[in-house]
Amino acid sequence: MKTILTALVTIGLLAGSAWASDETPTALSNKEAIDLVQTHANYLWTLIAAALVFFMQAGFAMVEAGFTRAKNAVNILMKNLMDFSMGSLIYWAIGFGLMFGASATGWFGTSSFFLADFSPDGDPWVLAFWMFQVVFAATAATIVSGAMAERTKFTGYLLYSIFVCGLIYPIFGSWAWGSLYKGSGWLEALGFIDFAGSTVVHSVGGWAALAGAIVLGPRLGKYRSDGSMRPIPGHNMPLAALGVFILWLGWFGFNPGSTTTADKSIAMIFVNTNLAAATGAVFALITSWFKFGKPEVSMSLNGALAGLVGITAGCANVSPISAVIIGAVAGVLVVFSVLLLDKIRIDDPVGAVSVHGVCGAWGTLAAGIFNIGGTTAGIIGVQLLGIGACFAWTFTTAFIMFKLIDKTVGLRVSPEEEIEGLDSLEHAGNAYPDFEVSSI
Amino acid sequence: MKTILTALVTIGLLAGSAWASDETPTALSNKEAIDLVQTHANYLWTLIAAALVFFMQAGFAMVEAGFTRAKNAVNILMKNLMDFSMGSLIYWAIGFGLMFGASATGWFGTSSFFLADFSPDGDPWVLAFWMFQVVFAATAATIVSGAMAERTKFTGYLLYSIFVCGLIYPIFGSWAWGSLYKGSGWLEALGFIDFAGSTVVHSVGGWAALAGAIVLGPRLGKYRSDGSMRPIPGHNMPLAALGVFILWLGWFGFNPGSTTTADKSIAMIFVNTNLAAATGAVFALITSWFKFGKPEVSMSLNGALAGLVGITAGCANVSPISAVIIGAVAGVLVVFSVLLLDKIRIDDPVGAVSVHGVCGAWGTLAAGIFNIGGTTAGIIGVQLLGIGACFAWTFTTAFIMFKLIDKTVGLRVSPEEEIEGLDSLEHAGNAYPDFEVSSI
Amino acid sequence: MKTILTALVTIGLLAGSAWASDETPTALSNKEAIDLVQTHANYLWTLIAAALVFFMQAGFAMVEAGFTRAKNAVNILMKNLMDFSMGSLIYWAIGFGLMFGASATGWFGTSSFFLADFSPDGDPWVLAFWMFQVVFAATAATIVSGAMAERTKFTGYLLYSIFVCGLIYPIFGSWAWGSLYKGSGWLEALGFIDFAGSTVVHSVGGWAALAGAIVLGPRLGKYRSDGSMRPIPGHNMPLAALGVFILWLGWFGFNPGSTTTADKSIAMIFVNTNLAAATGAVFALITSWFKFGKPEVSMSLNGALAGLVGITAGCANVSPISAVIIGAVAGVLVVFSVLLLDKIRIDDPVGAVSVHGVCGAWGTLAAGIFNIGGTTAGIIGVQLLGIGACFAWTFTTAFIMFKLIDKTVGLRVSPEEEIEGLDSLEHAGNAYPDFEVSSI
Repeated sequence: MKTILTALVTIGLLAGSAWASDETPTALSNKEAIDLVQTHANYLWTLIAAALVFFMQAGFAMVEAGFTRAKNAVNILMKNLMDFSMGSLIYWAIGFGLMFGASATGWFGTSSFFLADFSPDGDPWVLAFWMFQVVFAATAATIVSGAMAERTKFTGYLLYSIFVCGLIYPIFGSWAWGSLYKGSGWLEALGFIDFAGSTVVHSVGGWAALAGAIVLGPRLGKYRSDGSMRPIPGHNMPLAALGVFILWLGWFGFNPGSTTTADKSIAMIFVNTNLAAATGAVFALITSWFKFGKPEVSMSLNGALAGLVGITAGCANVSPISAVIIGAVAGVLVVFSVLLLDKIRIDDPVGAVSVHGVCGAWGTLAAGIFNIGGTTAGIIGVQLLGIGACFAWTFTTAFIMFKLIDKTVGLRVSPEEEIEGLDSLEHAGNAYPDFEVSSI
Repeated sequence: MKTILTALVTIGLLAGSAWASDETPTALSNKEAIDLVQTHANYLWTLIAAALVFFMQAGFAMVEAGFTRAKNAVNILMKNLMDFSMGSLIYWAIGFGLMFGASATGWFGTSSFFLADFSPDGDPWVLAFWMFQVVFAATAATIVSGAMAERTKFTGYLLYSIFVCGLIYPIFGSWAWGSLYKGSGWLEALGFIDFAGSTVVHSVGGWAALAGAIVLGPRLGKYRSDGSMRPIPGHNMPLAALGVFILWLGWFGFNPGSTTTADKSIAMIFVNTNLAAATGAVFALITSWFKFGKPEVSMSLNGALAGLVGITAGCANVSPISAVIIGAVAGVLVVFSVLLLDKIRIDDPVGAVSVHGVCGAWGTLAAGIFNIGGTTAGIIGVQLLGIGACFAWTFTTAFIMFKLIDKTVGLRVSPEEEIEGLDSLEHAGNAYPDFEVSSI
Repeated sequence: MKTILTALVTIGLLAGSAWASDETPTALSNKEAIDLVQTHANYLWTLIAAALVFFMQAGFAMVEAGFTRAKNAVNILMKNLMDFSMGSLIYWAIGFGLMFGASATGWFGTSSFFLADFSPDGDPWVLAFWMFQVVFAATAATIVSGAMAERTKFTGYLLYSIFVCGLIYPIFGSWAWGSLYKGSGWLEALGFIDFAGSTVVHSVGGWAALAGAIVLGPRLGKYRSDGSMRPIPGHNMPLAALGVFILWLGWFGFNPGSTTTADKSIAMIFVNTNLAAATGAVFALITSWFKFGKPEVSMSLNGALAGLVGITAGCANVSPISAVIIGAVAGVLVVFSVLLLDKIRIDDPVGAVSVHGVCGAWGTLAAGIFNIGGTTAGIIGVQLLGIGACFAWTFTTAFIMFKLIDKTVGLRVSPEEEIEGLDSLEHAGNAYPDFEVSSI
């Protein structure tokens, strides 16, 4: 014990030695003092928004657990906890530097790994900015767990989340959102509009989810040889609904927080975000009512998320009435996309590909179409280029990665494990030991 | 596909054409710059508070689902999702204009429909203010779903929420909170005190809930012909408790956010809100312990909500010690009110009428009684007038509306459906398909 | 009714009479105006942070309910609701004055009871500060309920929470965090570092929990006479996971909010908090995987909390890389501590002693070791002194208190009640009446 303590003190002395005490501000002019107070407000807003976006992890965990079976609930909770935890570490070590480090080429950054360029004498803005970005990176990773639920090996999943947060997400991000330092991404340089990440975050998550679902194949018994499909309902609708409300709340950090500035512009972003979500829910309700004859709960919940994903790219540069249109289209689109995926036998238990991939693409296009500064064929072209580049990069790299994981540590659990449930065999514990659970 | 795209681009061009680019601030004097930073703080606070109040939707959904039976859980979640979603749209189209548009008469506003008076060249405050108000409107609507739970047709409920968010709530609101533009409400002009809406929001919800519960009648089997009552316990107490904690959190947006200003005054409002909630819970616990011999969980949870509703009107103009008294009275009152409603055979599954209607009236009266600026018979008179006007307007219009819905699309499900559960027949899905559920 | 109304009006007149109207700010200089806007930002941040910390109550309720059996869920929810509610009142009446009132001796404060020194003419900062502190006090109290779960009498628990929020917690707090007025605590005067309360809040809760678990003894059947141990799994992992995410979110108020100032320093505290939590989860996962052969969900969740508790003391004065080390150690430590407690047959159903007591001590030591201003043997000595003083004070007083409660009103339920479950006999209601529950 004493040697451990001595060792820790030594590490501490080393870690601490490079650090000076807090700067004491010298007398400021009024102009400088005003700027400083505004800067404080910007820090406050960015970090509170980051906390809201962090909370989306709880939302995803509840949605994904609620929309899948009780026998796999522990597994999906563990994945959500771990992709955020491991994602935080890998994004700190590598991802942030690749995404926002100084970029000479426009294709990736090469500084700011391990937040090494931060010193306490210097400006802590990089820390506030990192905090906001790490929760975005984890969002992209988390999206995938839903589409791959109920059949993925835990070790394979852990590997996956390292690659997404460390490489796939940040490299695409650097193309569209450029550098915190000098240099800018090549898509950004072309004028690509994706204010808060319909493409950068949601489509990246959605297309990686698509690759994962394809490499994994459908759950046992999902698609029958006679061409029919077995519906596998989620086990806990109150949790799923809670998750959607949490996500909606978190989006009030995700979209307006992307200003990283506390100014008047956040008001319109709040309003657009809320209107698109509401319209998405209403239109998915209507669409599902027409298609299935009953107002369907999982479609309505996904409709709200579809509206939110759809408005993410354009939330700062479309009018409220455009937000209503964008949300309505997203709400319809998500229902048809879910049906289409089932038709081509891609099994996505929670609808992640449709919500995040498809509606992310729609939202990015819509940000060009409804741009309040006016739209041109050129703008539409760049938006389509960004959408295409995102699909090409993400689907390809994710597909290769999942294939590699599959060939090495393995991506899918055994059929016995899948039937028994992942919780008892992968995690030696069940989500609800006091209840009779009969999920098959 | 190409024609749809072309059409959307055309709409986009039209929608965008009226919009100029962002204003660039010219050189500001120090005075103006200071004001601007304070204004930014006000936007920030108002919008963060709106996000907290939005989250109350999750709280209501969990409380209402938890306090009712498993067989109707999907239905209540759908109602909560939909009254917020449809409410957002109708309040955007009509409600906000009726409530806060320019009011020549003091009885309703006549501008700002569809947020049409907002232009990007102008002041976006109307958007921040709308965002804060829309979550209030939806709160009023949501309150009703609990009292009408487990027996209301989904289509009838959707119609209802349109009327409440579009007409009943905003018109009463315009009397008490007046206009964002010129003109003020007639109650406001008399000096009516209802800072954050004990009457404007909660009593409106509560009295509409009362009308709904009366028109619907009690759940099958609730009141027996021998005069006895069958307790129908809620199916999920952890969800209900979570919901109450979420509502308590949301109230820290609801009450102090009603300043729409980031200044020192919010501190006392936070403290008052918290003390009243805590005292409400403690006194409901004690009262239920005396009445039933055991510390009852649903009464204690409702006691916290009763305290919160009670302090809402006076949170900014009573002292912390008055907040304690107000919360204590509310905590006792809610228990007796629940018992009284059962005695007169009005079936309110979650206690919404008692919590929001009765304690809302108490809180409004208390805001006059404990006014820190002093109280007079005149003040008490105006408070009583406001309470009475709210009951008369809301109960009457809601009663007529529910009768009309009942006669047309129908308000109540069939007895078969009620016994089977609303989830399987109205929504073709159950909340917990993997569990043995035995709710009768 | 009329007499009650008259009485209340009279009380209101008395309560209101001492209060003047709001101060109207006279013309301010630019310097003063800038300071005022910054002050408004400080209020805003402190109160929003308080709201986040309040929400931790929901997190604790979900974690504790999820980690225990279904038959005791109502009981644990009631305890969480009531220790916050009663704690708020007792901390308002007594605790805050003892902790932050003027302290002549350095051992406790003697003013500001019932917030009596606040007048509306004066500075409302005491109200904002109280609001932030009351949620801390309740956190300390709530920690204990988990360790004493499934066998404690409700009345005994209520008494306990009064003593902790009214005496044990505030007195220790006054030693370390001193006074809002004049005078400072004796530990504070020695240079004790505990920025947000690894010791002041978490260890106080943890050591009181230890005393409670010892006085109570283990749950029936937990430790068998043959030396083996029966695992008693928690009944609802999704709730437990949700609780951990909520706690993680709340910690973004707990740690950076402890600045009570909206400035740049909160950025590093956010980053440190997040990195330590993530590392704690990852290292507890790895440790449990090595020890048990499977990645264990409850250990991983507790690992995140362990990291959060560990970084709390040093969050403002260690670097991000140190936060990673602190979290990693905490994640390992919590697993071994849980195993050790079981070995010595102290039954802590949720791991509260290990998470809050042990990792709180580790975090306090680490704040000295990794201090960015440099570390010395003197600093380490003071940290160890503070850790020891906390244990001595809290464990001793809590042990005596629990023994006294045991001898008077009784601390433990009867064996019949414990086997049947606390919900049906203590509270006359079950958490899940619609489900088959088979917890033994």
